[in-house]
Amino acid sequence: MSSKLSKLTKRPFNPSSDAGWRINSSQTKYDTPWIRVAEYEAVAPTGVPATYGVVVFKNLAVGVLPLDADGMTYLVGQYRFSVGQYSWELPEGGCPVDEDPILSAKRELSEEVQLKANNWLPLFSNVHLSNSVSDERAFAYIAWGLSKCNEHAADDVEQLKIWKMPVGQAVQMVVNGEISDAFSLAILLKADHLWRAGKLPVEVAKAFEAGQV
Amino acid sequence: MSSKLSKLTKRPFNPSSDAGWRINSSQTKYDTPWIRVAEYEAVAPTGVPATYGVVVFKNLAVGVLPLDADGMTYLVGQYRFSVGQYSWELPEGGCPVDEDPILSAKRELSEEVQLKANNWLPLFSNVHLSNSVSDERAFAYIAWGLSKCNEHAADDVEQLKIWKMPVGQAVQMVVNGEISDAFSLAILLKADHLWRAGKLPVEVAKAFEAGQV
Repeated sequence: MSSKLSKLTKRPFNPSSDAGWRINSSQTKYDTPWIRVAEYEAVAPTGVPATYGVVVFKNLAVGVLPLDADGMTYLVGQYRFSVGQYSWELPEGGCPVDEDPILSAKRELSEEVQLKANNWLPLFSNVHLSNSVSDERAFAYIAWGLSKCNEHAADDVEQLKIWKMPVGQAVQMVVNGEISDAFSLAILLKADHLWRAGKLPVEVAKAFEAGQV
Repeated sequence: MSSKLSKLTKRPFNPSSDAGWRINSSQTKYDTPWIRVAEYEAVAPTGVPATYGVVVFKNLAVGVLPLDADGMTYLVGQYRFSVGQYSWELPEGGCPVDEDPILSAKRELSEEVQLKANNWLPLFSNVHLSNSVSDERAFAYIAWGLSKCNEHAADDVEQLKIWKMPVGQAVQMVVNGEISDAFSLAILLKADHLWRAGKLPVEVAKAFEAGQV
């Protein structure tokens, strides 16, 4: 891994005092393999004392918009424990902070929809999913030039359904409120924007055109 | 408040056993006025035991895309403690779960950019910002017919800058990665999609057209 990438993905939570917040103390309040809750006694830039609980993520979030030449994409359906409901999403997963997010994206594409891709276009880098209390950062890609792949076994707590559909139909599901996962809907909307603004590579733009419904 | 709305916004975290997860026990591990961390001993739909820490939010997230007749919008700049960096975002804030999200949206628009609006178009409802570990839900609106308003004082821990710019420039900031807040970028991209697809009210579409750069 390049040192540039390592710097990009490893950046720990480190509030800087020169940003106006003064940190008096910090304490770990909860710790799991996925998250840590850190509580800070701090003074806000306005001079007001504030206790700030931050959810520190141990993985990056990665997401993939797979797209075949006919404009078909793949949604993954699962019951999301945290929100207590079923959710249709793009292939997504966690990436160890010392790994290149694209390697995790490739693994998730293989694990969740049994595909590999010849081409990858970065779509989001260092996007903050919920910055009022968490430091979670997300990376996303469009993947095309797809073929079958059986390299990775499914996660043992996931029970996934796969739904192959035209990419335009997935965008419509965003518009209609049928996709509630913010990361998935942001990926679909950014790809759709780039297509409508004529900013996608020719091959991807043709697939997007073919996938309109 | 109507009972329909109350049902919509008050929905507590309540994983249903018929979704395949079996809950053996739960415990509060951390508690603040904003979040609670609940830990569940559960059995996944695949039969595998799993300890699941869920960040339960005590407020809904609300966001507003203000738009004047010339296509200008307003970004709010602030240092985000949780991610340790400066962030340009749409006016956003928290909404008590027993309040209609549009009331909070109106308050945030007034508090953060000193504006009120005659017209409100719902854009997102019940979007999950980070569903791998949190139950945070977001609501967003386009607001137009803007006028000055000094009804609400600013939050005492916030030090905000206001940046008035054409809406097309804000969308370009999303495309260029200069807006890292997922909620803000999703709002801008959805509004942009509706405009490009000819699905916005005529007055809003005209403003969007005027705000292209």
